[in-house]
Amino acid sequence: MDKKEGHQLKMFTIPALDSQAGAEAKMHLDILTKPVGSLGKLEEIVITLAEIQGRKQPSIKRLGIVVFAADHGIVEEGISAFPQLVTRQMVHNMSAGGAAINVFGRQQQAEFALVDVGVIGESFSSPVKDCKIRQGTKNFLRAEAMTQDEVEKAIDIGYREALNLFEKGVDCLVVGEVGIGNTTSSSAVVAAITEIDPAELVGYGTGISSEQHVHKIKVVQDALMLHNPNPTDGYDVLRKVGGLELAAMTGAMLAAASRRIPVILDGFISTAAACVAETLGEGASGYMLLGHQSMEPGHQRAFQYLEKEPILSLSMRLGEGTGAAVAYSIIQSAVRMVNEMATFESAGVSGKN
Amino acid sequence: MDKKEGHQLKMFTIPALDSQAGAEAKMHLDILTKPVGSLGKLEEIVITLAEIQGRKQPSIKRLGIVVFAADHGIVEEGISAFPQLVTRQMVHNMSAGGAAINVFGRQQQAEFALVDVGVIGESFSSPVKDCKIRQGTKNFLRAEAMTQDEVEKAIDIGYREALNLFEKGVDCLVVGEVGIGNTTSSSAVVAAITEIDPAELVGYGTGISSEQHVHKIKVVQDALMLHNPNPTDGYDVLRKVGGLELAAMTGAMLAAASRRIPVILDGFISTAAACVAETLGEGASGYMLLGHQSMEPGHQRAFQYLEKEPILSLSMRLGEGTGAAVAYSIIQSAVRMVNEMATFESAGVSGKN
Repeated sequence: MDKKEGHQLKMFTIPALDSQAGAEAKMHLDILTKPVGSLGKLEEIVITLAEIQGRKQPSIKRLGIVVFAADHGIVEEGISAFPQLVTRQMVHNMSAGGAAINVFGRQQQAEFALVDVGVIGESFSSPVKDCKIRQGTKNFLRAEAMTQDEVEKAIDIGYREALNLFEKGVDCLVVGEVGIGNTTSSSAVVAAITEIDPAELVGYGTGISSEQHVHKIKVVQDALMLHNPNPTDGYDVLRKVGGLELAAMTGAMLAAASRRIPVILDGFISTAAACVAETLGEGASGYMLLGHQSMEPGHQRAFQYLEKEPILSLSMRLGEGTGAAVAYSIIQSAVRMVNEMATFESAGVSGKN
Repeated sequence: MDKKEGHQLKMFTIPALDSQAGAEAKMHLDILTKPVGSLGKLEEIVITLAEIQGRKQPSIKRLGIVVFAADHGIVEEGISAFPQLVTRQMVHNMSAGGAAINVFGRQQQAEFALVDVGVIGESFSSPVKDCKIRQGTKNFLRAEAMTQDEVEKAIDIGYREALNLFEKGVDCLVVGEVGIGNTTSSSAVVAAITEIDPAELVGYGTGISSEQHVHKIKVVQDALMLHNPNPTDGYDVLRKVGGLELAAMTGAMLAAASRRIPVILDGFISTAAACVAETLGEGASGYMLLGHQSMEPGHQRAFQYLEKEPILSLSMRLGEGTGAAVAYSIIQSAVRMVNEMATFESAGVSGKN
């Protein structure tokens, strides 16, 4: 049987969140030595983690950061401020520890993995993992970005890389990326799934001009007109207008959700992958916390679609997973709080008048 | 000579910020491997710290947290949700490590000091430092909260406690507090200095009813009518409507500014002390970063008066210094970023097209 015709597309089964554990966490928070609700979003984070992990006092021991790198054929259309070669150069920079995501990874004592799923040129040497599927995607204004087989391979690589990290003790995941052109692909992906007009989603990426911005919107609109992807089918969306790193990110997020491990979403590209993940594994987004609000305009639309609220709002727009990695500190504050604070009873503190 | 009549009130000399170092930091940030400005507020934090420390790559090695505790006579007027005894109980809880500020202090590996400047009852045992000036303030709806001598003593204690921490290697300071009734005193202090109507400043504190809220506004308005404090004289404001811990906090902040050490402001009470500090040492607030935006309504008015913007906005309203201690993670991210990221040149990464 031809694998590409008629074979059943894999859908992912995501366990239900544990609302009982969430309710128990809420009750526990209310007996800690502080006015009820006075730790705001830290308390909400605890409840979400309780639902994810199925215990009233959630715990997180080790952050994992996996960064997927790939190139984008759409760069031919002049939609990026930086030349395509920068993808490759940034992978080198990251493998040497000099990128922002490396800095925040060290701050968080995170387990770090960097995976080439489609950077143009030769394979990198260690510590970059060589999982190159092809030399970047095709220009999706002219052709489908990749084949169904390539989409599935990329998702599978992402899934397995996440499992690798979980085997090393990682119990909270940031899924980052590097890929010049990937805000354009993400705009097309989010527009396809949410059916929002690309004009409301497309931003300035790493810093294009106003003229380039108008052009970038047109590129996305034309590509969607050409391919007409199915909003409910992440495979179709990724094949037509996606990116290799976006597909791998989707796979990593699905692995985390299937193992009840929280994912911290980053900015626009990460949230685009989350939208895809939800179409392939219903309920997957329940395992995701949103690390920060990016300056990229499409980000807000995408996270509202997923019904998320950002933990941080620091006017960041770097990508790589940086906003999520920075937000991990706040998640750590929340987890420590619920595990280490005394109760009114244990501390002998009186309640309200 | 009678110390209380005719003696010169001490004013604090604050060094100027180093705008040249700030400009150099900005230039350095722009050559790091990221789109210009893409790390948003993290970059602003770096520039502020550069101006404070006088070097383009600021560094912070150790956080210090000093918490001042005191009682408030104004509690007689029924303005708090919790009984006065809770000040004492929370000091015990903090000395045992069970309060939220202890948890976040451990997370940040902070040097921690807890100082009694006026809690009702006997002195505490170690590790609480006994610097009790009096058994709480007087009810400032009936009399001046304390004497000029007591204000000066409290400021001096705060100043010296901060210096103690700096001698231990602390190079960034959080000034926290515990004191049932201190949002009422802080409302009066901020209203006196900013000349904003108390109705716009007074909030629900640890959780009073709507009726109590109306009453609390009236208490503050009546007290200001009675005492008419001088908005430009922090000594006068503290003596008439202040708190012993507020005065000590002011002293600690002035010590930090005089030594060019950054202070992370917390919520309403902390920001009230910062407003006082600025009247006693012009330019002191230039050494302060605002950790978070509290849910207490007066907080926003107070930090706008100081021309500050919050790093975090997590709907917190606990006090103790907690929002500032949580925000220290973000300041650490900023400092690491400017010191550890590669430049475009060192990493061999191309610039914009």
